[in-house]
Amino acid sequence: MKNLIECIPNISEGRRAEVVSAVQGAALSAAPGVLLLDSTSDSDHNRSVFTFLGDAPSLLAAMTALVGAAIERIDLRSHTGAHPRIGAVDVIPFVPIRGSTTAECVALAKELGAVLGERFGLPVFLYEDAAQAEERRNLATIRKGEFEGLEAKMAGPGWIPDFGPATPHPSAGATVVGARTFLVAYNINLGTSDKTIADRIAKTIRHLSGGYRYVKAMGVFLEDRKLAQVSINMTNFEKTPLHRVFETVRSEAERHGVSIVGSEIVGLVPQAALLAAAEHYLRLEAEPSGQVLENKLLDLAFQEEE
Amino acid sequence: MKNLIECIPNISEGRRAEVVSAVQGAALSAAPGVLLLDSTSDSDHNRSVFTFLGDAPSLLAAMTALVGAAIERIDLRSHTGAHPRIGAVDVIPFVPIRGSTTAECVALAKELGAVLGERFGLPVFLYEDAAQAEERRNLATIRKGEFEGLEAKMAGPGWIPDFGPATPHPSAGATVVGARTFLVAYNINLGTSDKTIADRIAKTIRHLSGGYRYVKAMGVFLEDRKLAQVSINMTNFEKTPLHRVFETVRSEAERHGVSIVGSEIVGLVPQAALLAAAEHYLRLEAEPSGQVLENKLLDLAFQEEE
Repeated sequence: MKNLIECIPNISEGRRAEVVSAVQGAALSAAPGVLLLDSTSDSDHNRSVFTFLGDAPSLLAAMTALVGAAIERIDLRSHTGAHPRIGAVDVIPFVPIRGSTTAECVALAKELGAVLGERFGLPVFLYEDAAQAEERRNLATIRKGEFEGLEAKMAGPGWIPDFGPATPHPSAGATVVGARTFLVAYNINLGTSDKTIADRIAKTIRHLSGGYRYVKAMGVFLEDRKLAQVSINMTNFEKTPLHRVFETVRSEAERHGVSIVGSEIVGLVPQAALLAAAEHYLRLEAEPSGQVLENKLLDLAFQEEE
Repeated sequence: MKNLIECIPNISEGRRAEVVSAVQGAALSAAPGVLLLDSTSDSDHNRSVFTFLGDAPSLLAAMTALVGAAIERIDLRSHTGAHPRIGAVDVIPFVPIRGSTTAECVALAKELGAVLGERFGLPVFLYEDAAQAEERRNLATIRKGEFEGLEAKMAGPGWIPDFGPATPHPSAGATVVGARTFLVAYNINLGTSDKTIADRIAKTIRHLSGGYRYVKAMGVFLEDRKLAQVSINMTNFEKTPLHRVFETVRSEAERHGVSIVGSEIVGLVPQAALLAAAEHYLRLEAEPSGQVLENKLLDLAFQEEE
């Protein structure tokens, strides 16, 4: 298990279980060496997030098959959901895990981008560490205007894709592919149904409006629970930790007379992100990861393989 | 190795290195899936303590081999040492670690007890969570009278073993097998040099004086830092979690106008103890261990070996 890369495709389908299952299955059968670590569907967002683990050649095959299966089944012209998106397969990031590098992930992103453009006539934008221009690093910038605004956006200046045709795929839009560090998706649920409060709190914590450097956030209304949610992407949990963002959200919510009723991590999270919270709140004088029993085991396991 | 159990056999040999090494080696070669985390021999006590990690079937095989190797080499009729003991293999506790439960450890203790009784003609007493009678929960009670008094004790009422013959093994005595929870040593440092405050807070949290069921605590004065400390043994961190004790200490300290300046975990700690704190303070709606990336890797690493 060397040169391990994590790959987290986000597809614009979180309601039709049979579609989610077909897309997931296509990836797995195309590359038996690829492992599915997690699969999470959200019907409010109408979006599913898969976490795959594998080496570069296996992930290339798996993602090609996944995109093929998704564009056959997902038509963005009739898609609704709380989460912004420009594509049936909205974004495919590669993340270096153990024994692999950012450079390998960037190379893999470019390889996949070329295949998707050629085989499916899908425009592909490279982002984050794979971006070929500084203004394309940011996913939100690429996604701004969403699927509905994509045709006009690509017709204007500066949005020729890195791979594929210069116009959107009619039903599948475009796909953003890239390499980045581990992203923690973290949502905080408020004791109110007033989405404007979640919007205002999101503004206070996100980088774009003067908040934390490694935070992206927006307000969302959860139909099923009738709750407002601050939906957060933590793009560097080491430099901007979860507990700091949580405390700021708590303080801002209080100012509106609202409490935090819960929070959720979507998908996987590195142990360090949660240990940092325990360390903070318990006021531990030493970083505890070296004392965690399971880490001794992990060390042993990977030592033995080398 | 999904259902990880810790096992800490204590053998009555701490002087003859070749015996310690043979006993340890027998366990490891019987079950390659078992990992040795620690091995400590004490010549005054004439006793060695091993820390193994593994799943239930591997530990069953490893402990059977360990006992076999130990009773071939250790004769309690000529054994001296400062530590109380009734057997060549004196005590074998199983501790649930990751993905495993007390019930599984109790089942494993009973399975091992049955094997030891049959295969080696060794009387086995079950203790702590595996005890089949309340008066056998306590190790000290079972061990009272030691090897030298064991024959008379077992001839009297109330000491029929849970497994094996009704009389001691001539050279190996008897073995105590059981299940207990992980003990976390956790100290909280107060912003005062007044030890009486630490004493008073310790009283409020410890079971003995009306506090939490699974807490032992006392006040300590740290000479080097001139600080009062509440020194705590958490005997069941799942039922009495660290964060609850921390919050009570904080509240009690406040009542004395004192703050908490830091805390420390001594030795190893199961990941779950710290994740529980993160879950509490971040108000996570779901227990997060299944989402921790390293846990998935650990699963995969051990899966591949099987």
